[in-house]
Amino acid sequence: MQPSDLEIARATPLQPIAAIAAKIGIPEDAVEPYGRHKAKLDIARLSHVPRGKLILVTAINPTPAGEGKTTTSVGLADALNRSGRTTMLCVREPSLGPCFGMKGGATGGGRAQVGPMEDINLHFTGDFHAVTSAHNLLAAMIDNHIYWGNVLGIDVRRVVWRRVLDMNDRALRDIVQSLGGTANGFPRQSGFDITVASEVMAILCLARDVDDMRARLGRIIVGYTRDQQPVTAHDLKADGAMAALLAEAIKPNLVQTLEGNPALLHGGPFANIAHGCNSVIATTTALALADYVVTEAGFGADLGAEKFMNIKCRQAGLAPDAAVIVATVRALKMNGGVAKAELAAENVEAVRAGAVNLVRHIENVHQFGVPAVVAINHFGTDTDAEIEVVREAAAAHGVRAILCRHWAEGSAGTAELAEAVADLADKGAQFAPLYDDSLSLFDKIDTIATRIYRAKQAVAEPSVLAQLKRFEEMGFGHLPVCIAKTAYSFSADPHLLGAPTGHVLPVREVRLAAGAGFVVAICGEIMTMPGLPRHPAAEHIHVDAAGNIEGLF
Amino acid sequence: MQPSDLEIARATPLQPIAAIAAKIGIPEDAVEPYGRHKAKLDIARLSHVPRGKLILVTAINPTPAGEGKTTTSVGLADALNRSGRTTMLCVREPSLGPCFGMKGGATGGGRAQVGPMEDINLHFTGDFHAVTSAHNLLAAMIDNHIYWGNVLGIDVRRVVWRRVLDMNDRALRDIVQSLGGTANGFPRQSGFDITVASEVMAILCLARDVDDMRARLGRIIVGYTRDQQPVTAHDLKADGAMAALLAEAIKPNLVQTLEGNPALLHGGPFANIAHGCNSVIATTTALALADYVVTEAGFGADLGAEKFMNIKCRQAGLAPDAAVIVATVRALKMNGGVAKAELAAENVEAVRAGAVNLVRHIENVHQFGVPAVVAINHFGTDTDAEIEVVREAAAAHGVRAILCRHWAEGSAGTAELAEAVADLADKGAQFAPLYDDSLSLFDKIDTIATRIYRAKQAVAEPSVLAQLKRFEEMGFGHLPVCIAKTAYSFSADPHLLGAPTGHVLPVREVRLAAGAGFVVAICGEIMTMPGLPRHPAAEHIHVDAAGNIEGLF
Repeated sequence: MQPSDLEIARATPLQPIAAIAAKIGIPEDAVEPYGRHKAKLDIARLSHVPRGKLILVTAINPTPAGEGKTTTSVGLADALNRSGRTTMLCVREPSLGPCFGMKGGATGGGRAQVGPMEDINLHFTGDFHAVTSAHNLLAAMIDNHIYWGNVLGIDVRRVVWRRVLDMNDRALRDIVQSLGGTANGFPRQSGFDITVASEVMAILCLARDVDDMRARLGRIIVGYTRDQQPVTAHDLKADGAMAALLAEAIKPNLVQTLEGNPALLHGGPFANIAHGCNSVIATTTALALADYVVTEAGFGADLGAEKFMNIKCRQAGLAPDAAVIVATVRALKMNGGVAKAELAAENVEAVRAGAVNLVRHIENVHQFGVPAVVAINHFGTDTDAEIEVVREAAAAHGVRAILCRHWAEGSAGTAELAEAVADLADKGAQFAPLYDDSLSLFDKIDTIATRIYRAKQAVAEPSVLAQLKRFEEMGFGHLPVCIAKTAYSFSADPHLLGAPTGHVLPVREVRLAAGAGFVVAICGEIMTMPGLPRHPAAEHIHVDAAGNIEGLF
Repeated sequence: MQPSDLEIARATPLQPIAAIAAKIGIPEDAVEPYGRHKAKLDIARLSHVPRGKLILVTAINPTPAGEGKTTTSVGLADALNRSGRTTMLCVREPSLGPCFGMKGGATGGGRAQVGPMEDINLHFTGDFHAVTSAHNLLAAMIDNHIYWGNVLGIDVRRVVWRRVLDMNDRALRDIVQSLGGTANGFPRQSGFDITVASEVMAILCLARDVDDMRARLGRIIVGYTRDQQPVTAHDLKADGAMAALLAEAIKPNLVQTLEGNPALLHGGPFANIAHGCNSVIATTTALALADYVVTEAGFGADLGAEKFMNIKCRQAGLAPDAAVIVATVRALKMNGGVAKAELAAENVEAVRAGAVNLVRHIENVHQFGVPAVVAINHFGTDTDAEIEVVREAAAAHGVRAILCRHWAEGSAGTAELAEAVADLADKGAQFAPLYDDSLSLFDKIDTIATRIYRAKQAVAEPSVLAQLKRFEEMGFGHLPVCIAKTAYSFSADPHLLGAPTGHVLPVREVRLAAGAGFVVAICGEIMTMPGLPRHPAAEHIHVDAAGNIEGLF
């Protein structure tokens, strides 16, 4: 029997982080150790001249069956290294809050993991805490400004900046604050989001350097005056202190895979109301250090890859050379109408029916001019006939689908994938974002809706359209859009699996993230502060006398 | 002209933290570096057999004139080291929140500082963030338990566990949470305190080891049922996950003074509603490593030294060998009735009048069987005649008062103090806490009121007395008491300077900190969530392109 993720991790001694840094050619004076197996990289002491090929790992729409995108990213990076190609992995840091709810860690699985897993899943190097502090300092400075006379004339009804905690805490979603009398300010309704939903997190991940980060922080709109003029973080003189709080957090975090290959884990914005990718700084740092950089984006390719290309690559001037679309036979079966309980039984027809989901993601990636390969993340219940159906579906679109066994075998299980990906990447891509900056905001939303989601159209109430018009009048019409919708379907309806057409994308609300540099279009119910389940994972987590943390996975 | 604290700090290169660790004999495998100049010590790899002398640095009642307790602690530790005595400094970590408000850093000043000051004053090694997370996880688990059926029968009106942030944010003092409908829980009134006011912080600082910490976390009372039975963190199964969140935070932080001597900065509970001392683990670790350990306690000796001896030493089995009482001519003048604007002018009579404050602190320290020496922290405006008055006042009680110039001169300025302190400590003390565990809770409060504050008596409403009785019935009568009162006076009235008598100590409210292991007696207005001033320091803080943080001091 395959040992558990935790057993594998504990049985694999990690190398000193200085050795990992040396392996990838990072000068010693650029390595700031955090414990024995984590380090921050001093970006001021590193080259930023890109030399590597950029490979995006994305996936079909997620299902409860699991796809294993991070696991595949780790396996691919390990296999590229094993083949003699100098490769770095670049992925997001996990959020602390959800660790205590339903899910386990977010550091891969089986023999394709990054470590040290306990550290990474708990406080890691403190980046998320820094984001929380910077976000909440701005919140405190808003109410403090109002308290001391409100010279800027902020309308207390129009404060749009909430607070954040890296915690699943439904009780904080909707609060009334500043109660208790004059000493505590002016009562108003507000609330908390989880830290990964903070615009500060998106800024940390899109900033090119410290100066760009500060400028973006300054552009954050915290609210409006009674005559609807925006008030920014810079108006409140909060941007400098926020940047100081983020001065360490902006440095990428170096860790290692269980096979001893270098990995940067840095930043972790939500993939719905934000863009869902690790930091630009980590990616550009890796591209200067390695010949191949394996990165990923949140959720399926409809959200993750689209935002990676239209937001992150656009803003940072990056261009992906190849994409890997992760699929599993199980998840395709679910897309083909099979219930979770029935997944173990062979069902070739269901795989064939569900493969339309994979095919559409292939087509979508190709729309960006990026060549793709499909990684079939192997499960023990997959049959040869089922796998063959996936291969055929991909081949019909000129794409290889390769069976990967990294979970059980580590890099040996992704050797074929690595060769295929390297071949594609070496040939290069003709990348272009899907739409021009000059398109109107609504037309950008509609372009994504019709070309990526294959909806008939995007629809919005007049009030939403008026709001978009207002953002354009304010000078933000050139921004890309960031769609917040369910991850489970191409549509806004989480139950519409496969490859739906004819649906409409209902835009309920739009928000301006002037610092991050995108306009969020909220389509459907989006939860920005999760709750804990009936039996939270926290109930089973403990630390023994020797300091070992148990129950986190 | 003396350069600024920041200029001095920047002009003094810090040694690699490994070199500091080696100097004090810490084995390399016990050092977990956090950057180049900070490390956590793996206490499992260190001896815990005490060998050192314990020296407490305390002070007269604080005034706006400043006393320089931390600066004196640093100067004393440096001078003891300079004299050839192996010495460690043990002090609290500063809180992040206040850095953005009024005050600058809390790392000493002049030539008596610890570094790296920017890191220490911002996130340092993340301990306070870990306390915030552990505290708020418990809060989330309380509301989550109620949400999912409330099997324990928690009365939503009787939840006593609030939330915390390491931020000065008056808007969060008093909130209504869980608004917005059934999905968000049961609306109730609550609020946030600053992290240093968290019982989790007090627990971190009083725990002897990881197991003791977990047991204490489990004993936290979060609320009561409708029939007033206590519900604990252990009942909610939150203690294990909280301990996991604190697994790194419990390890002491090693840094250095600007003279390259080892310092442990660890923990930072409030000195009013908590006991105001660095962690027990840091102190015991230092006592096993060094021949002399210099530590301090918050505010003046009436609060700080009293709690250090009656709470920390009692619980941890520690015994101080000597005490240093820091005084300044300026602060004694204020105690003698001089306004702040008049402090620069010589006023021998005012010093004489104010010296009653110093004298009473000397008497109080002696009540614990601990020998004392007075450190006169020198200011440029002090005159010889004024200093002589202080010397005479101390000498009348058999205590030396020694002029110290560590701010301007570093350890050279505290050489005489170091010799005097070492002499006292080498002779040893006859330490005993002021009261027995067996005394009733109210009698403990009254003992402190009459013997330390020299009040006529402590007084309390019948409801408060009934609450104390209830705590005793619950089995907590053996706990020490922790007085929360103004730091500015021996009395509960901040304007009553000098050495008042005949006053009464009004106990407004009592709270049980079952995990920390004390009963808090609140006497007067105590702020557990500060606000920002009209012009917060944050407005002037920024980070330059090279990553240097400006404006923090």
